[in-house]
Amino acid sequence: MNNFKFWSPTEFIFGRNTVNRVGQLIKKWGGTKVLVHYGGQSAVKSGLLADIEKCLQNDFIEYVKLGGVQPNPLDTLVYKGIDLCRNENVNFILAVGGGSVIDSAKAIAAGVPYAGDFWNFFDRTVTINKALPVATVLTIPAAGSEGSDSMVITKTKGGLKRGAGSSQLRPVFSILDPSLTFTLPANQTANGIADMMAHVMERYFSQTPAVELTDRLCEAILLAIIKEAPVVLREPDNYDARANIMWAGTVAHNGLCGVGREEDWATHGLEHELSALYDVPHGAGLSVMFPAWMQYVYTSGIDRFVQFATRVWGVEPADAKKDTALKGIKALKDFFSSLGLPVNFEQLGAKSADIDKLIATLKINSGDQFGAFRKLDMRDARTIYEIAAKG
Amino acid sequence: MNNFKFWSPTEFIFGRNTVNRVGQLIKKWGGTKVLVHYGGQSAVKSGLLADIEKCLQNDFIEYVKLGGVQPNPLDTLVYKGIDLCRNENVNFILAVGGGSVIDSAKAIAAGVPYAGDFWNFFDRTVTINKALPVATVLTIPAAGSEGSDSMVITKTKGGLKRGAGSSQLRPVFSILDPSLTFTLPANQTANGIADMMAHVMERYFSQTPAVELTDRLCEAILLAIIKEAPVVLREPDNYDARANIMWAGTVAHNGLCGVGREEDWATHGLEHELSALYDVPHGAGLSVMFPAWMQYVYTSGIDRFVQFATRVWGVEPADAKKDTALKGIKALKDFFSSLGLPVNFEQLGAKSADIDKLIATLKINSGDQFGAFRKLDMRDARTIYEIAAKG
Repeated sequence: MNNFKFWSPTEFIFGRNTVNRVGQLIKKWGGTKVLVHYGGQSAVKSGLLADIEKCLQNDFIEYVKLGGVQPNPLDTLVYKGIDLCRNENVNFILAVGGGSVIDSAKAIAAGVPYAGDFWNFFDRTVTINKALPVATVLTIPAAGSEGSDSMVITKTKGGLKRGAGSSQLRPVFSILDPSLTFTLPANQTANGIADMMAHVMERYFSQTPAVELTDRLCEAILLAIIKEAPVVLREPDNYDARANIMWAGTVAHNGLCGVGREEDWATHGLEHELSALYDVPHGAGLSVMFPAWMQYVYTSGIDRFVQFATRVWGVEPADAKKDTALKGIKALKDFFSSLGLPVNFEQLGAKSADIDKLIATLKINSGDQFGAFRKLDMRDARTIYEIAAKG
Repeated sequence: MNNFKFWSPTEFIFGRNTVNRVGQLIKKWGGTKVLVHYGGQSAVKSGLLADIEKCLQNDFIEYVKLGGVQPNPLDTLVYKGIDLCRNENVNFILAVGGGSVIDSAKAIAAGVPYAGDFWNFFDRTVTINKALPVATVLTIPAAGSEGSDSMVITKTKGGLKRGAGSSQLRPVFSILDPSLTFTLPANQTANGIADMMAHVMERYFSQTPAVELTDRLCEAILLAIIKEAPVVLREPDNYDARANIMWAGTVAHNGLCGVGREEDWATHGLEHELSALYDVPHGAGLSVMFPAWMQYVYTSGIDRFVQFATRVWGVEPADAKKDTALKGIKALKDFFSSLGLPVNFEQLGAKSADIDKLIATLKINSGDQFGAFRKLDMRDARTIYEIAAKG
């Protein structure tokens, strides 16, 4: 097991009717002038935004609003948010939405106290040492950003999609009310499930030996998701199933699943090029790319794939490890399909003919080599995209 | 699933040679004058205390020392610590040791800013709203106090053993170096393992339905412990096995295993009377009491016991649920025995003839009714002690 630091200081407030505590919580965490950051019309139509505004007004908390965050959130809105916060002396940011809204809020939070261009955090010329406190009201269980130290933003010019992180970006509190997710459409629900499973698997597929507890925790989260995912798709207003999925999304990405070992993240790198080029949902892209990555790399650590197959998917061990490993990968792919998720380029709306373009931006974002379970270069990446294209 | 709040803000620094960061960390968390609190001679003999003092001196951090914490820590030393901290203007407490030392440190931390008698926190007439920051260097993986919000102290007069808690008591940081545990004697290692397993099981055995993720996380921790426990007893200096056990002890008790459901804690209540009367280690008492409690209550929620048997112990489901459930309980008992832990009164050094005494103090500490999985009164408690006596 490797040495590690684990720090997940977010206060999670979970359950029905917890949104009405938002005012109190903001006060507790020192907010006096708040930016309420949100996405499109769903937070407005559902009445959630109005509920939150009423709370803030009742608690005499001043606020300004900035909506319009899109999936794969753009730098342009971040710049706008930074200016607004500075002009209005905002000292606290409340993200109301899913991962895109939260990531946009985090970028604004880090950008406000920084004199230069916030994109410097993403081209890795500057580290984040300071940020306004961020809190969240989560509406889409998927990205785990409500408990994580990271964010992903897309640069409008050139379409670069990049991640950055800092412990300063851990939300001070996150409100998770599973009933807010009852109205999520099936495809968004499924995309979120692929995303959270990917967050576990990027950490699970590691060459660091003897991390049994972390392994078991990863498997636990996957097993719970595998049980509850079909239920939320069949019964969108099943509170308990929605609750298990929502909490799974948080635990999958607050860092617990990675402690003590090297993480991979190659598949996220490969996927980011797909969602940047086609503006497809991140989770859908992951559903295509993860099985493809697995098929390409499993021989580099077959015991881990056997463990994945037997412990997570209940595959009976075959005589040849290879057969067991491949059955596990197939089980994952079949599971994604069963949720209505894409597992090849055609289903995703991507084209084999664009692989050159994907490789070109991947090289800019990931450098000549990326990944950890198996170090990958651009030739490897091309083959994985080709596998993904066929599915 | 029930509503919950989960807040585990402790910064965990885990791995080899992490103790030398203690000075930096204290500064980061605002400590300028430190009470170094520890137990008997082991921290002195091992050189750990000298290492820590050297760190503090190198970082120009002032400190005073208070040793002598015993297993089942006493109120008398807490009073002494409170006085010392007030006289020396201490603003930060560093606990160096296991759960007893950390609990004693927490009681001092809460007592310093409180004008009345700190025992008021334990007789539940006053809640803890304020405490000095506490940090830990853990040397015994067991109690989970390095990541928890709770503490247990014994009143010298009358031998009452009581728990209290507050989110103010969560350590600000905890340093966990598994190599510090290489020299732990086998019996202390085994007692710690029983304690951490009990922390999971007190939360696992719940009547709250549909908490699949929390269930799976509990099972994950138990499975990892079951794998690693024999290894640490066979090979006390196996770093990876020690590391998995150490981290398991923390995750077992930071709250994650209980979210979303009612917890039980009847067995802890029953055990506290044993360790208060005989001054036996808490873990050893739990090893006797948990299987006994299970044998008495399993019919009140047999499906849960079937799940425990099949998922945790790999028991093949029998035709009758009862048989499967009992096999799971037996597997736990056999496992405890295999670690050299006591599973009856004789092995523990307790006497059936004292059950009246145990019941008398239990009634004072737990009231007429206690427990949640099944509500227990003093007649039930008596029967459970009788089962435990025979083993």
